[in-house]
Amino acid sequence: MDAVSVIRTKRDRAELSDQQIDWVIDAYTRGEVADYQMAALNMAILLNGMNRREIARWTAAMIASGERMEFSSLSRPTADKHSTGGVGDKITLPLAPLVAACGAAVPQLSGRGLGHTGGTLDKLESIPGWRALLSNEEMLHVLDTTGAVICAAGDGLAPADKKLYALRDVTGTVEAIPLIASSIMSKKIAEGTGSLVLDVKVGTGAFMKTIEDARELASTMVGLGTDHGVKTVALLTDMSTPLGLTAGNALEVRESVEVLAGGGPADVVELTVALAREMLDAAGIKDADPAKALADGSAMDVWRRMIAAQGGDPDAALPTARETHVVSAPSSGVLTRLDAYDIGIAAWRLGAGRARKEDPVQAGAGVELHAKPGDTVTAGQPLMTLHTDTPDRFDYALQAVEGSYDIAAPGTDFKPTPIILDRIA
Amino acid sequence: MDAVSVIRTKRDRAELSDQQIDWVIDAYTRGEVADYQMAALNMAILLNGMNRREIARWTAAMIASGERMEFSSLSRPTADKHSTGGVGDKITLPLAPLVAACGAAVPQLSGRGLGHTGGTLDKLESIPGWRALLSNEEMLHVLDTTGAVICAAGDGLAPADKKLYALRDVTGTVEAIPLIASSIMSKKIAEGTGSLVLDVKVGTGAFMKTIEDARELASTMVGLGTDHGVKTVALLTDMSTPLGLTAGNALEVRESVEVLAGGGPADVVELTVALAREMLDAAGIKDADPAKALADGSAMDVWRRMIAAQGGDPDAALPTARETHVVSAPSSGVLTRLDAYDIGIAAWRLGAGRARKEDPVQAGAGVELHAKPGDTVTAGQPLMTLHTDTPDRFDYALQAVEGSYDIAAPGTDFKPTPIILDRIA
Repeated sequence: MDAVSVIRTKRDRAELSDQQIDWVIDAYTRGEVADYQMAALNMAILLNGMNRREIARWTAAMIASGERMEFSSLSRPTADKHSTGGVGDKITLPLAPLVAACGAAVPQLSGRGLGHTGGTLDKLESIPGWRALLSNEEMLHVLDTTGAVICAAGDGLAPADKKLYALRDVTGTVEAIPLIASSIMSKKIAEGTGSLVLDVKVGTGAFMKTIEDARELASTMVGLGTDHGVKTVALLTDMSTPLGLTAGNALEVRESVEVLAGGGPADVVELTVALAREMLDAAGIKDADPAKALADGSAMDVWRRMIAAQGGDPDAALPTARETHVVSAPSSGVLTRLDAYDIGIAAWRLGAGRARKEDPVQAGAGVELHAKPGDTVTAGQPLMTLHTDTPDRFDYALQAVEGSYDIAAPGTDFKPTPIILDRIA
Repeated sequence: MDAVSVIRTKRDRAELSDQQIDWVIDAYTRGEVADYQMAALNMAILLNGMNRREIARWTAAMIASGERMEFSSLSRPTADKHSTGGVGDKITLPLAPLVAACGAAVPQLSGRGLGHTGGTLDKLESIPGWRALLSNEEMLHVLDTTGAVICAAGDGLAPADKKLYALRDVTGTVEAIPLIASSIMSKKIAEGTGSLVLDVKVGTGAFMKTIEDARELASTMVGLGTDHGVKTVALLTDMSTPLGLTAGNALEVRESVEVLAGGGPADVVELTVALAREMLDAAGIKDADPAKALADGSAMDVWRRMIAAQGGDPDAALPTARETHVVSAPSSGVLTRLDAYDIGIAAWRLGAGRARKEDPVQAGAGVELHAKPGDTVTAGQPLMTLHTDTPDRFDYALQAVEGSYDIAAPGTDFKPTPIILDRIA
């Protein structure tokens, strides 16, 4: 077996054999297959595709490259959620304690943001004292005592994927459905969850720009999970506009706490409750009512215990940015578009995100929205507020904001895109 | 400008701009673009192609990455030949002194063999004392005093191509017409020849398996040469069967000397004379008769002087292999097929070629043919003789020979493929 023959197979549009896939993933993890060889293979996969059998084997080989976690010692069934990433997507924050309050164990191994999409760990780190890095024992302890844990994935899970993901990022091969699906699912399956709900984002602010691509990615991942004995369901949800009214680390924590307190923006509440229902259903928990658990404070109780168990102070004031800048509506009418990608870029430029993995993020930076598509606005009213510690970034962020929205004539009949577009099981 | 945006452009089937091409070749030569990024770009080029403008710019950027040679101090016009490589292709050996004997200056910067095709320098190194590595001054001196020189290309010519070629070899991206054409032509143009004749091989033993691919490669290269002021012509020639009756280093030198002595196999003589006529015509030399220069010994005189000028003894006995093994015809009839690729692999396995760049080659190893397609054979007569210093390799070589030939019933009407298939100017 050698790297060039594996590359040639995919280059020439043939199927990779099980043996070729097992060998190339293992040899790449060990460093026998070089980065430049894997880069050529990734590009061939991106352009020529893989069939279901190849994707399944590729995923299994990545799982086999590292350790697997195991939650069978817990008394509750486990439920996990993964989002493909979007702008203002803070759903994990209210969702994990909510589902735990309804009876499941929720181990959320999460990541950091890169580019225009935020990362769950960056958001939680704006809470004074909160720690993302837990040992396996600490993680199990938090999960066992509070019902939920949100922390960084250990280095031992799917190391092949870790190496491959970093390579794809610098070789223009991120946007390949087989590689995205196997990357997400190898991590989630190695994490040992019993059930999984996927939130596949569609729209300008997502990796998948069209519903067709999102559907293909979702059904590929549902198939992979099912094949590995993980009950898997996917919701396709809108990412043409930001989720909720905030994009930025502490800003999104604040909004999440509002949702846990029984308030918050309607789209965030709707998606949180819908995903909670899917997770509980997948975990086999009947008769739980997530809407009630938000209203009666039981989800908030889990949140407070979970944050405290990881060193955070749930009562501490959240950091705020040193400077703000208000963008006003230039005309009166109906807001018909507010682009997720543009707002994500603006938040990133304000300091909420990072350009390189080692960059720090600003806890208080981001964009706060005062109107969403479908709302009526009056000329001069605040449309959004930009937050940053480094005001010299306002101009650069404003370039992204410019052209990010459309205001139609007053009285225009406009119906915003629903938040949930499809369900794949 | 960054590598990922260049990769994405070609990945998404768009044209690379002149600026992108200039930048990526220069940055790769300097080490700013990594091997893994260039590997992904190469695969995207292989699968999505480049148009004529992109190939021309890519070639110009590779030429600009290093120094250019210059032969204007010579009193004779220069003529150069390049073969895309085949089995038993020793043509450079008789051709260079022949064309010099007819009045041109022939600077042949040549390479070593890799895989199933042999290298001109490996062949000449079987002559006791002969040196492939010359300084620029030595090279010009040999060329000026004998009319021809065959030596290794210096490190300063098209360094981008040198790096790229090594990368393509280990990433399954050798077989891309834009990359093959730009690689060959950047070196040849940097070498400073005034005219160039290309021998583009077609068939099982060549990179180009079909006449259509060979025609596309040839016309791409002729266009590149012409654009850079080099008078360029291509012959498409058959490589479905080995050239001549030998494949192996010293074996091919012996056959070349037979041709220079006025004898030798008909196909080698025909192709040598045809290429000589094209080179002389491209160099603007009229009234020279290459067939006469072979017959009257004037080409042999140049050969002897050229070999001696590079330290070789033209009268020394050539090395022979320690062991031989004869393969006999299993039946009587007409030989209708003798596969170039299989014979090339057999010669390689016997020790004539190398698997890795740093491997040594055996001077005496190879395959000697006793019949060619079209010949009548009798059961039991020798079909070929295998030569090696390491007889434990016979079995491995015989596996390649098995199935390499077809013998049809006696009296079958069979016409071998002509050696010259097409001409592109």
